[in-house]
Amino acid sequence: MGNYDIRSKIGLRIKELRAERDVSQEDFANFIGMSRSYFGEIETGKRNVAVINLEKIVKGLGVTFEEFFDSDLFSGE
Amino acid sequence: MGNYDIRSKIGLRIKELRAERDVSQEDFANFIGMSRSYFGEIETGKRNVAVINLEKIVKGLGVTFEEFFDSDLFSGE
Repeated sequence: MGNYDIRSKIGLRIKELRAERDVSQEDFANFIGMSRSYFGEIETGKRNVAVINLEKIVKGLGVTFEEFFDSDLFSGE
Repeated sequence: MGNYDIRSKIGLRIKELRAERDVSQEDFANFIGMSRSYFGEIETGKRNVAVINLEKIVKGLGVTFEEFFDSDLFSGE
């Protein structure tokens, strides 16, 4: 996945973990107090998300940062 | 370290890894093409750094994102 932009990699990883939890974009965004449209843009790799919002997402997914980045998506970094 | 803001945790982790490499703030900032003042603000936890710049730093330190976040600093997340 080395050719993907970091924004896209993070979006794909969020989507993967959200799908495992079987929760919709809208429900997840509501759960973490983020607008659905902004969250959707992060998930599709359109946003250069900053660490405070990334932490909200990572915590909402119930993983640590280390677990979040433990994925083949990031192994080529 | 659960009471530290994510910005501070990231700054501390950067500083720790940079110190291990025995490189100054200024030399490291130059190496990754970032201004010393901006990099210094990230390291002191004053900046809500976004993922594109965080990736520059992580790559410059020669670690993966997973390795970067593999620290007790983040284990309480």
